[in-house]
Amino acid sequence: MDFDYKVIESEEVCKFIKDGTTVGFSGFTPAGYPKEVPHKIAENCKNVKINVYTGASVGEEIDTELVESGLVDLRMPYITNRTIRKAINKREVRYIDVRLGKFPEFLRYGFYKKVDLAVVEACAINEKGFVPTTSVGPVPTFVMQANKVIIELNAWQLKEMEGMHDIFVPGFPPRTSIPINQPWDRIGTTFVPLTNEKKVYVVNTNKPDKPMELAPATKEGEKTANYLVDFFIDEVKKGMLPRNLLPLQSGVGNVANTVTAGLGKAGFKDLSFYTEVFQDGILDLADQGLVKIISATSISLSPGYLEKFRRNMDQYKEKLILRPQGVSNCPEVIHRLGVIAMNGAIEADICGNVNSTHVFGRNMQNGIGGSGDFTSNGYLAIFFMPSTRKDGKVSCVVPRVSHVDHTEHDVDVILTEQGLADLRGLDPWERAEKIIDNCAHPSYKDMLFEYLNDCKKKGGHEPMDMERANEWHRNLEERGSMLG
Amino acid sequence: MDFDYKVIESEEVCKFIKDGTTVGFSGFTPAGYPKEVPHKIAENCKNVKINVYTGASVGEEIDTELVESGLVDLRMPYITNRTIRKAINKREVRYIDVRLGKFPEFLRYGFYKKVDLAVVEACAINEKGFVPTTSVGPVPTFVMQANKVIIELNAWQLKEMEGMHDIFVPGFPPRTSIPINQPWDRIGTTFVPLTNEKKVYVVNTNKPDKPMELAPATKEGEKTANYLVDFFIDEVKKGMLPRNLLPLQSGVGNVANTVTAGLGKAGFKDLSFYTEVFQDGILDLADQGLVKIISATSISLSPGYLEKFRRNMDQYKEKLILRPQGVSNCPEVIHRLGVIAMNGAIEADICGNVNSTHVFGRNMQNGIGGSGDFTSNGYLAIFFMPSTRKDGKVSCVVPRVSHVDHTEHDVDVILTEQGLADLRGLDPWERAEKIIDNCAHPSYKDMLFEYLNDCKKKGGHEPMDMERANEWHRNLEERGSMLG
Repeated sequence: MDFDYKVIESEEVCKFIKDGTTVGFSGFTPAGYPKEVPHKIAENCKNVKINVYTGASVGEEIDTELVESGLVDLRMPYITNRTIRKAINKREVRYIDVRLGKFPEFLRYGFYKKVDLAVVEACAINEKGFVPTTSVGPVPTFVMQANKVIIELNAWQLKEMEGMHDIFVPGFPPRTSIPINQPWDRIGTTFVPLTNEKKVYVVNTNKPDKPMELAPATKEGEKTANYLVDFFIDEVKKGMLPRNLLPLQSGVGNVANTVTAGLGKAGFKDLSFYTEVFQDGILDLADQGLVKIISATSISLSPGYLEKFRRNMDQYKEKLILRPQGVSNCPEVIHRLGVIAMNGAIEADICGNVNSTHVFGRNMQNGIGGSGDFTSNGYLAIFFMPSTRKDGKVSCVVPRVSHVDHTEHDVDVILTEQGLADLRGLDPWERAEKIIDNCAHPSYKDMLFEYLNDCKKKGGHEPMDMERANEWHRNLEERGSMLG
Repeated sequence: MDFDYKVIESEEVCKFIKDGTTVGFSGFTPAGYPKEVPHKIAENCKNVKINVYTGASVGEEIDTELVESGLVDLRMPYITNRTIRKAINKREVRYIDVRLGKFPEFLRYGFYKKVDLAVVEACAINEKGFVPTTSVGPVPTFVMQANKVIIELNAWQLKEMEGMHDIFVPGFPPRTSIPINQPWDRIGTTFVPLTNEKKVYVVNTNKPDKPMELAPATKEGEKTANYLVDFFIDEVKKGMLPRNLLPLQSGVGNVANTVTAGLGKAGFKDLSFYTEVFQDGILDLADQGLVKIISATSISLSPGYLEKFRRNMDQYKEKLILRPQGVSNCPEVIHRLGVIAMNGAIEADICGNVNSTHVFGRNMQNGIGGSGDFTSNGYLAIFFMPSTRKDGKVSCVVPRVSHVDHTEHDVDVILTEQGLADLRGLDPWERAEKIIDNCAHPSYKDMLFEYLNDCKKKGGHEPMDMERANEWHRNLEERGSMLG
């Protein structure tokens, strides 16, 4: 074997944890993350603060238990869990919100504190390394950096996953091309390599992933999804997109799932996905024989779908490639493949800027995730959201977003259950009219047009009156509603 | 020959111009743009409105004369000239501000109105096409799209430029890799191909480019540049960057030039540039034998430097490659090469967001240009600006920028004549402190810290109080100063 390892008991983990230790846990969504070691750290380690890196959001053992035990100093690169969100907004946990594709790369470049200890889930150990499970995320980089590696060898994860992963770590620039020219190109190994330069420990476990149920599809979500499917049908008719579209990326959630289902119903086939998460909707499409390839970094299926996947793994295996997030979210590859990016938003403004992360520009809701990687570099950048939230008290179409995650330069299409605004080729004033006309809720349209008309009198290249724009969020904060 | 052409007089140009015609002029900075045809259009064509595309900013024949003649309806993708800026801000000219790398690509994808007429400057015509002059910009795409091409064959431009250009147009995605693995890789032809599918006309001219003098270096600019050079020296010492750095990009202007000069003085050598514009500072470095390669899309030298370049073209020729802006600014290549991006800013906020384009979020100052292409995808994204403007009445470090062109997720380093803030690995609160501490002008530091402390009381993941942040620009607009 290329490396030795020692089997340990999970009770021993505190000896690996010192004050200031940076731990890289595997996991991207509650999939493929270690369950036993973080749980034991939370339970047993005292008087230390650690830095916690993962791929993206993970399970409660990390973002709830470790946080409640007061152990987390710094967290990167993504969160969505309520406990840690609350701690971040109370400034009890420091959090850096990073584009997921950049995270492993910038770690390797030395921009962040290096990983001391990698804690990774595996379904098998072979002569040369280990086989990851339901996600890859930044694991290859964590393992490269760490002196010590704890493998949670999880008997619950099926050994049959071996062969599904494609492990490749780009070199320091200037480097040669990442040789993915089609979503199905395989370029690496099926395992994460290990050598005797690392101290490797194994904890045997038997614990299921804890996938979340998808929120049920709403009528509004379905309307939104239908607008997007119609848009794709139209683009194909106009000759703007090939009949099987271009490789698709979609964020997590039920609108994304409904869009995927809608593509199937609309007769699209030979679809390919170059995305972060393999979700329910994609599995349905695969079952219908409509999917050519799914390239992702995580299997993020709801409980029932995950069971189905596990039962019939052989039939999905040939269609699924799990890559490190530095590859799944790599600007170079996304640009070359012409990925169509579809992501949810908190709010969008009439200039076309999108807020994906912060409420009132201040409170973290969830991280930017991969949306920036795909939005800046794909073929089309599409954002969806409801036109209102909180029983209509919040308009998601506003004069000025309270935090900008995606600039007007990068956003091509915005849609809500009211309709779709295709912003390509429009100047700022045309964009504003189209967004209000097509996406805003009727109860806010007049207010938005009034604002726009006053901006027109003021002149300028963009409709912006900073004072008046502020009133919207002020009204919400002070009076509980944007409705004046 | 692969194509026929007809020599015409410039007086005939109005027959090519109809109401709604989209004209793609060559030119990227006042270099390599046609001078005679736009001048004649401005002088002679009546009762029409046209759409004007170029590579970036160009000469006064286009952005002053055409605008003053009232001929311009829509302008893309970049401006900086005062006349057109004024017209845009008065809403007399529609303007879409586009990332320069995306512009030719999105044109080919059909996202913008297609080019009807390409008007391009050439220094020679050969069997297969024409040789561009001091810039390439989006010319290959303009020519691909246009049914009619007018070549300004400019005798002033030296025929010896032939061999300097590298013309390559990426295909529709998914496409294969753009095979540039080092800045010096040549991948295309030395001319822009033409066929008999186009109607080609030639206008003979003899008119110089109209390069602009660089504003003289200021003491503040020199201080800023020195901080950046010291930063690079430090990064090399720490092993974060190789001794010849990584390929450099820098925006137009005297700070960029001073940085370049400073690198030479500091003993850096074997430097390479993967950038948009070949500027004075780079030529000085080349004269000192410190430059390995300059890849750019435009020769943007000041008058004296341009003369020097023309006199000694042979000695620069082997070190210079002029590429289309879709390649010079291509996310794939920028990411792979690990380009260090250095660009100027109008203002930056304490969260790390950068405004490159709009004053008061409303008035166009100059376009985003290539800064987005490099900032989102390079190895390091660096922005510089003075700490104050208008005799200290404007702080360029503010609580919240009035327009976001580059988000906190993408900005690594901000510097002013006060100092440099390296934001990598810092959480939002640490970032804010460092930006205020290192970059803000002493006369604004207390105000900024006071704001920051009040935000701390408010909590949240980012220091943001939308109301209080607004006061800064309100004070400036109403009282002429941000100084309360």
